[in-house]
Amino acid sequence: MRIEIVNTGTELLLGHTLNTHGAWLGGELFKLGLRVARQTCVPDGEAIREALVEALGRADGVIVTGGLGPTSDDLTREITAELLGLDLVQDAGALASLEAFFAIRQRPMASDNLKQVYIPRGALALPNPNGTAPGVYVAADLAGRPHGAIFLLPGPPRELYPMFLAEVAPRLRLLSGVAAPPDLLEMKFTGIGESDFHQSLDASLAAIPGLEFGYCAHIGEVDLRLIGCAAAIQQARALAVEYFGPQLVSDDGSSLEETVVRLLSERGWTLATAESCCGGLIASRITDVPGASAVFTHGFVTYSNEAKRGLLGVTAEALETHGAVSEPVVRQMAEGALAASGANLAVAVTGIAGPSGGSPEKPIGTAWIAVAQRGGATRAWRVFQPRNRLDFKLGVSQAALDGLRQCLGELAG
Amino acid sequence: MRIEIVNTGTELLLGHTLNTHGAWLGGELFKLGLRVARQTCVPDGEAIREALVEALGRADGVIVTGGLGPTSDDLTREITAELLGLDLVQDAGALASLEAFFAIRQRPMASDNLKQVYIPRGALALPNPNGTAPGVYVAADLAGRPHGAIFLLPGPPRELYPMFLAEVAPRLRLLSGVAAPPDLLEMKFTGIGESDFHQSLDASLAAIPGLEFGYCAHIGEVDLRLIGCAAAIQQARALAVEYFGPQLVSDDGSSLEETVVRLLSERGWTLATAESCCGGLIASRITDVPGASAVFTHGFVTYSNEAKRGLLGVTAEALETHGAVSEPVVRQMAEGALAASGANLAVAVTGIAGPSGGSPEKPIGTAWIAVAQRGGATRAWRVFQPRNRLDFKLGVSQAALDGLRQCLGELAG
Repeated sequence: MRIEIVNTGTELLLGHTLNTHGAWLGGELFKLGLRVARQTCVPDGEAIREALVEALGRADGVIVTGGLGPTSDDLTREITAELLGLDLVQDAGALASLEAFFAIRQRPMASDNLKQVYIPRGALALPNPNGTAPGVYVAADLAGRPHGAIFLLPGPPRELYPMFLAEVAPRLRLLSGVAAPPDLLEMKFTGIGESDFHQSLDASLAAIPGLEFGYCAHIGEVDLRLIGCAAAIQQARALAVEYFGPQLVSDDGSSLEETVVRLLSERGWTLATAESCCGGLIASRITDVPGASAVFTHGFVTYSNEAKRGLLGVTAEALETHGAVSEPVVRQMAEGALAASGANLAVAVTGIAGPSGGSPEKPIGTAWIAVAQRGGATRAWRVFQPRNRLDFKLGVSQAALDGLRQCLGELAG
Repeated sequence: MRIEIVNTGTELLLGHTLNTHGAWLGGELFKLGLRVARQTCVPDGEAIREALVEALGRADGVIVTGGLGPTSDDLTREITAELLGLDLVQDAGALASLEAFFAIRQRPMASDNLKQVYIPRGALALPNPNGTAPGVYVAADLAGRPHGAIFLLPGPPRELYPMFLAEVAPRLRLLSGVAAPPDLLEMKFTGIGESDFHQSLDASLAAIPGLEFGYCAHIGEVDLRLIGCAAAIQQARALAVEYFGPQLVSDDGSSLEETVVRLLSERGWTLATAESCCGGLIASRITDVPGASAVFTHGFVTYSNEAKRGLLGVTAEALETHGAVSEPVVRQMAEGALAASGANLAVAVTGIAGPSGGSPEKPIGTAWIAVAQRGGATRAWRVFQPRNRLDFKLGVSQAALDGLRQCLGELAG
């Protein structure tokens, strides 16, 4: 079944509002074993006509969101009926629901709302317990194929999502005849680039029959998406682990910070952070994870030299001789955080985020990271991330969290 | 000029990734006086062909994002060239930039990357200082109209956004011949909801001739967008200030944290933060602002009671009698941060982010905020933000930063 989505909404094209429907519907359809062949977004009003004609000509499953409201530029019902050569008729069930909607809320019904219960003749009104606009399901032979379907759904997510799950998904499951959707595995890697995967893995993955794969690169992370039968996915997973096992963060959708919190929990260890250039971002990412309070107790954001000295015991000599962005200072920061917190593990970062403060020896983007372990050695390493300020913070936090992950992984392994 | 956007990316249709490009480009085009007539999203690979043929037939400005990478399903360059009847040629400037990109990062260049510097003959390679794929600008007569333009842009936002602003916007400004786009003023408010605006302002704003207005609600913030001639915008601005002046954060696009850093700088004051429930997010937001190091020195993330006692001098008695989420504790946190840092101003937050830890008296979403001022009184107030964990952190950080803004504003006023 070839599915297309048509979103109507001027606000989606003005930069005001993110189109979250496309992604949400794509995810739900994928669970049914269906793919979105195309998603189109047009402004409110007449623009839906052209987009709908084209979608009906290509797809046998068309999902339209928006344009079911009571105002004059809500034309989805009218134009769909016209394109299918059907007239609009009042739906008695939808009318009763609409009247009940207002009665329950003790609000008078505006006469404009009445327009919403007219649907194409022969179509089915889909109940909307969360709003005034019923959805519409039209069975039609589309794109020269039988068993086609058009679904007109309301725009607001709190109306759209429940209606899709209750009314659309079961019908699409029947119509598409897909018995079981393919498996999907997402593997997250860090510390390597997308091109490393291309060079090492692409040819081998492409040779696995029935496997579909793709990458999505973020700052400091590459996600490998594997789709297919269980055997193909396992074969691909084994290959990826063979090449890049040490860089594997998770294969269950967990983020890097979730993985770090899990590893700490498994070990019963606590963590302290000492941040200069990341300015609290590492602590914030750790505390994004539910349950972080069991493993994270102390975070130090030492943005000045005085704070590094006062809170972490960094020596004036180290700061003067080597500068705040240096190996001796980052080591003292990590060890000082360990001492000041009583934690088992500490991570420290210091660097030059920019836009000012760089020098030829230490250009903007330079950072030092250290991981200190109670009763163990402190490791420190330099990274270079010449990015804008926010991406620098994110990239350095990613490298620091990955240092924690590796340290905890080695201890466990 | 009729503009269409074509986004390629399988991940955008699978539910993994939100399409943020559409909204961002829509907003930037609007500033140029241009509107997006249609936005289309297709999977990676061959699907771009059909979408591109159609867009080229309708629009005279086509912006394509994604599909410029080094892999076999990155086909945007190839298919564009084919549709326009042009062959692909190596661009010497783009090649030099690509080699420099890897040299600066001290990484070897994968041979696959070479594919990226082939562009349609006669097209212009657009520099990409943030990645390996140059953009492409092809001047062509499209949709039967002269002065058409096709822009092929990289998918990653950190590459796309700067390239659009530096290379695409100036060219579209010339090509479209829009002499002066309408004025646009964006006013950011915090501490009030969108419905407050609807009730108080909508009717008055709607009565201003030639004014177009809209709202965009975020967590803890409502942006009012005013579009039209200068006189209409000034009239609308005055109305908004009359009703909601104390809640106005900025009308120059500055974020709340930028406003706080500016107010601190103007006063020559320093700030310390003491965070429990926000877990470092307030410090991280402050340090997102360039120049924050001049006003921010010490951040404490005291996620455990022990950290609150040890780093901030919160008393065991206050913790035992009132609990960690209480007015006495948040006051001691703020005053302790002041004492431990030597800063002029300190903000503290403590609350229950969930998903566990709530009680009937202190349900999930409860938080206390305090602002302490050297030589002045400490203010504390309670907020209730029953949201998911991440939105709770963001909402409380917003309320805390707004407390700082108000305190600094009163001192200045």
